Amino acid sequence: MITINENFLKLQAGYLFPEIGRRIRAFKAENAGADVISMGIGDVTQPLAPAVIEAMHSAVDQMSAEDTFHGYDDSGIGYDFLREAILESDYKARGVDLEKDEIFISDGAKCDTGNMQEVFGLDNVIAVTDPVYPVYVDTNVMAGRTGNADKQGRYEGIVYMPCNVENNFVPELPDKPVDLIYLCFPNNPTGTVATKEQLGRWVDYARDNKAIILFDAAYEAFISDPDIPHSIYEIDGAKDVAIEFRSFSKTAGFTGVRCSFAVVPKQLKAYTKDQTAIDVHTIWNRRHCTKFNGVSFVTQAAAAAIYSPQGKKQIRQIIDIYMNNAAVIRESLTKLGYEVYGGVNAPYIWLKTPKDTTSWEFFDTLLQKANVVGAPGAGFGAAGEGYFRLTAFAQPSNVIEAMKRLAAL
Amino acid sequence: MITINENFLKLQAGYLFPEIGRRIRAFKAENAGADVISMGIGDVTQPLAPAVIEAMHSAVDQMSAEDTFHGYDDSGIGYDFLREAILESDYKARGVDLEKDEIFISDGAKCDTGNMQEVFGLDNVIAVTDPVYPVYVDTNVMAGRTGNADKQGRYEGIVYMPCNVENNFVPELPDKPVDLIYLCFPNNPTGTVATKEQLGRWVDYARDNKAIILFDAAYEAFISDPDIPHSIYEIDGAKDVAIEFRSFSKTAGFTGVRCSFAVVPKQLKAYTKDQTAIDVHTIWNRRHCTKFNGVSFVTQAAAAAIYSPQGKKQIRQIIDIYMNNAAVIRESLTKLGYEVYGGVNAPYIWLKTPKDTTSWEFFDTLLQKANVVGAPGAGFGAAGEGYFRLTAFAQPSNVIEAMKRLAAL
Repeated sequence: MITINENFLKLQAGYLFPEIGRRIRAFKAENAGADVISMGIGDVTQPLAPAVIEAMHSAVDQMSAEDTFHGYDDSGIGYDFLREAILESDYKARGVDLEKDEIFISDGAKCDTGNMQEVFGLDNVIAVTDPVYPVYVDTNVMAGRTGNADKQGRYEGIVYMPCNVENNFVPELPDKPVDLIYLCFPNNPTGTVATKEQLGRWVDYARDNKAIILFDAAYEAFISDPDIPHSIYEIDGAKDVAIEFRSFSKTAGFTGVRCSFAVVPKQLKAYTKDQTAIDVHTIWNRRHCTKFNGVSFVTQAAAAAIYSPQGKKQIRQIIDIYMNNAAVIRESLTKLGYEVYGGVNAPYIWLKTPKDTTSWEFFDTLLQKANVVGAPGAGFGAAGEGYFRLTAFAQPSNVIEAMKRLAAL
Repeated sequence: MITINENFLKLQAGYLFPEIGRRIRAFKAENAGADVISMGIGDVTQPLAPAVIEAMHSAVDQMSAEDTFHGYDDSGIGYDFLREAILESDYKARGVDLEKDEIFISDGAKCDTGNMQEVFGLDNVIAVTDPVYPVYVDTNVMAGRTGNADKQGRYEGIVYMPCNVENNFVPELPDKPVDLIYLCFPNNPTGTVATKEQLGRWVDYARDNKAIILFDAAYEAFISDPDIPHSIYEIDGAKDVAIEFRSFSKTAGFTGVRCSFAVVPKQLKAYTKDQTAIDVHTIWNRRHCTKFNGVSFVTQAAAAAIYSPQGKKQIRQIIDIYMNNAAVIRESLTKLGYEVYGGVNAPYIWLKTPKDTTSWEFFDTLLQKANVVGAPGAGFGAAGEGYFRLTAFAQPSNVIEAMKRLAAL
């Protein structure tokens, strides 16, 4: 008899964003013609940069002729032209030395952060912030690293590290041993950042405890403060203990194009039960080449284009549009008396819902009365209850209109 | 202390195709200018069809303007336009009724066949043919469904079903209970097919034993015999017990474009340990939406184009080129006295190596002396020892040249 993976049955409700999507569709079905402004799912709205479009057309043309056609990406981990551009602009320019084959091109940071746990033992204790991007938790539940969830949705066996006003939304070191630590800065959902000193404490912890940090830097391009690190490898010693994830989804508007990368340093070790050190890079490479077949040539050409001088300039203009949105949202909400966090070095604004209003109640009120969609903080974890996330990715005119509607509430 | 997933340490050597790639690179490094003809990795050589190119350019243009831009694919499982085209042309046209949301668009059959096992319990006994596409086995080893490998590379706990001349390369029903059965027809690597009656026996077995069949139909487009089923759902009752995988990689030359789909019927059940029936569709949907973020809009538009009248005609012409190659290979090898299988309803030719020559020896001889690359049968399983796979995907002129070189050996 074929058995199901019963770990899936432990999962709480649907994945957050499909649930938001369902509520929007239900609302629209009952309110035909309603002008709903989406600041929830975090999808971008600006078209691809001209340099990207040009590169894609050129790549498509190459696919139309026998002598320029590209089949499988033989390396399995991405074309040299893209990995070299990443190395140069994202790392060397910030004083970080990496080898080209420490970079694995992939089709999304969601996939990479979800899949990376596979190479580690099921006995590891994982630590996540609360609130947290749900994928980190759900994929560990599916793998069997947790027990059941309690009434607040917290899974047995996971160490939750609250992020709140008191700790500036950067978690304290855990008071019990943990092995695999998920950190995301600039943070989704709170929009807050960590300083070098704060990240340094985590790197020291991981080194002292033979732990590994999975560092999600998908939003690094939105950092405006020059003192905030973009990569965890800007911290001394991080290459021994950290894997980094990057994404082109928000940086270059690739949510519908699909490209990302993971950095797995060759010196990073995990251990067998008898304490033999194993290269994580070798194991991830085996996983990546066995279960994945590379990213579309057209997509990789598109990603490489954002590293050209023209591409960099155009991407910066798009990011500026979103960060102007963030400033408008921050200022409007602050004027309206909301407690507001994030939105300075990140495209997310994290606000406190009005007294005695739950996150999902606030979601429904905003949707019903202002036709504005956000993401309920509770969807990101128990500590997110009473908070609400707005994204800065809408069209500027829609952001202004949404703020007007909130003012009128 | 962070532990590694020790199941990865059970894996034998490298994944077959990277190993082939390494040997080719080593040979080329020592033999600069050697004109190596690749008939090994199974990568296509014909450029994309004009209808596909046109659709891609148009999709790229849509990504360049705010009002036609596509971000996330909201459904998570693929655009309606593509799933509807698949439903109509691949299934309804063959008398198979499926619902649109039983189709999950993905970025490769390798990924899908590798990932699907995640939704099933670790206690299931898996059955694979021998020889077999290595991904089925390796992903189960990684998940922990096997013990160690023996000297022949067979993992403890897996039921291997030999495919040989005696059974026409279609496996016998297993003599001990199995739960999850991987079948691939037209077969990779042997190039052989299964009749309705033969597949019917497997569907009956699965129904009688509450087993599930994972049916890889990535090569169905190469079937020329009108009596051979293209989909396992052409067999009565299969929707209760089978998941089907399809790919555009070989059908439409998408090895560098990346698109595929899996069909998970809603009536398909797996069971908890206390025998409660669970919808596999719901669980796979949760897995797919949590760990994957959809396929590029440009790629989905490209895939849909092969279902247009023009697209269908153009794809057929490309497939005909490859199947002419297959005929040339079959005839040449037969004339040279080789025992040859496949190549009639599939783009793979499976040949017996000369007496007392192992697969890898034959690989090295062909590479060194004829500068022709194939895939050693032993790389597909112990029963593949003494066999060799050639693919029909090279340029026609190269196929003719390769056959000349083999004749001269």
